[in-house]
Amino acid sequence: MTRHGPELAEFEKLSDQVKITEEALRADGFGENPFYHCLVAELLPAPGEPQGPCVVVGYGLYYFIYSTWKGRNVYLEDIYVKPEYRGQGIGSKIIKKVAEVALERGCSQLRLAVLDWNERAMNLYKALGARDLTEAEGWHSFRFEGEAMRELAGSEAIPWASRSLASPHPTPPPAQALLRELSPLTTASLKEERLGVTKPEVGKEQN
Amino acid sequence: MTRHGPELAEFEKLSDQVKITEEALRADGFGENPFYHCLVAELLPAPGEPQGPCVVVGYGLYYFIYSTWKGRNVYLEDIYVKPEYRGQGIGSKIIKKVAEVALERGCSQLRLAVLDWNERAMNLYKALGARDLTEAEGWHSFRFEGEAMRELAGSEAIPWASRSLASPHPTPPPAQALLRELSPLTTASLKEERLGVTKPEVGKEQN
Repeated sequence: MTRHGPELAEFEKLSDQVKITEEALRADGFGENPFYHCLVAELLPAPGEPQGPCVVVGYGLYYFIYSTWKGRNVYLEDIYVKPEYRGQGIGSKIIKKVAEVALERGCSQLRLAVLDWNERAMNLYKALGARDLTEAEGWHSFRFEGEAMRELAGSEAIPWASRSLASPHPTPPPAQALLRELSPLTTASLKEERLGVTKPEVGKEQN
Repeated sequence: MTRHGPELAEFEKLSDQVKITEEALRADGFGENPFYHCLVAELLPAPGEPQGPCVVVGYGLYYFIYSTWKGRNVYLEDIYVKPEYRGQGIGSKIIKKVAEVALERGCSQLRLAVLDWNERAMNLYKALGARDLTEAEGWHSFRFEGEAMRELAGSEAIPWASRSLASPHPTPPPAQALLRELSPLTTASLKEERLGVTKPEVGKEQN
């Protein structure tokens, strides 16, 4: 996978974005609470042939995600088949197996992302029954990364927020709101945070 | 959240897609290995006011995802602020806090998806430093769901695969490949599967 990750990146014309070590992949995927799961298609020795080193010809990397509307889902992050093994249905078998895992684990959706110039992949997923949500509903993927993410996390004040997003509602006497983590897992590492907010006038509240 | 999930769905003009119970949300988010984490913005009683029932005015629901190129990342699945509390920076504070959690947990990216008609949100994320990957790189979101997913998981043969995706490479003597799960978590529930594959001719292999 550490060899095929960069191969996939090269195929996707995004090679400069690969920044991971074999150690990190091993630690994150094979610990007690793995961050991802991986299916590999391995070449078997022919009958009578000696068992050589394992030859991986394709892989699928997936993890569990969550929808507030639908519950547990699976996300297929990577799917890759070595060029010389394409056209034999290995990719389809990988997707099929991931869909099986998804159903076994009570998921109702299998999501993935495709680059718009990769028509072969787009056609494959559509032929298999997938919907292009970007096309059909207008979903765009956004990403904070590197400096932008550190700035976001570190920004004490976000001064433009209250300016550029002025509410159409009137702003009566100030109140306080508390930002807190509901999930037990990370509670210890999170500080609660108080926010100054203004309650809407009585009668205007919609709920 | 069970109340605000449908509210968000209505806002996103996708109300008909909500299919989850409070019990499922509770079980999946607050068990031993939670599928998601949730930050809530709660209204506090004014000094002297009695402590009433908790009033949630916004929430952010996120989970951990994985990139083969970048490692651990966070995905912000939902972010919602009640209409009468918008324009006070609550949404920005929620994103900011999620970015903090992401950095604390060793993540390098915070991803999310936005509907293209929601210009207010798009402008907010861009102003905060996010990149629109659909616009910049051409990523499209695909989803298998319901019958399409069950068919995919259940389809023993995928007959069009070898027809419509003919390989440009020659197809020498058949070999066998094994599809197997690398991750320890689900090994027990997965059967290994043998695939018939053809090895490329020696000298043509690119690796």
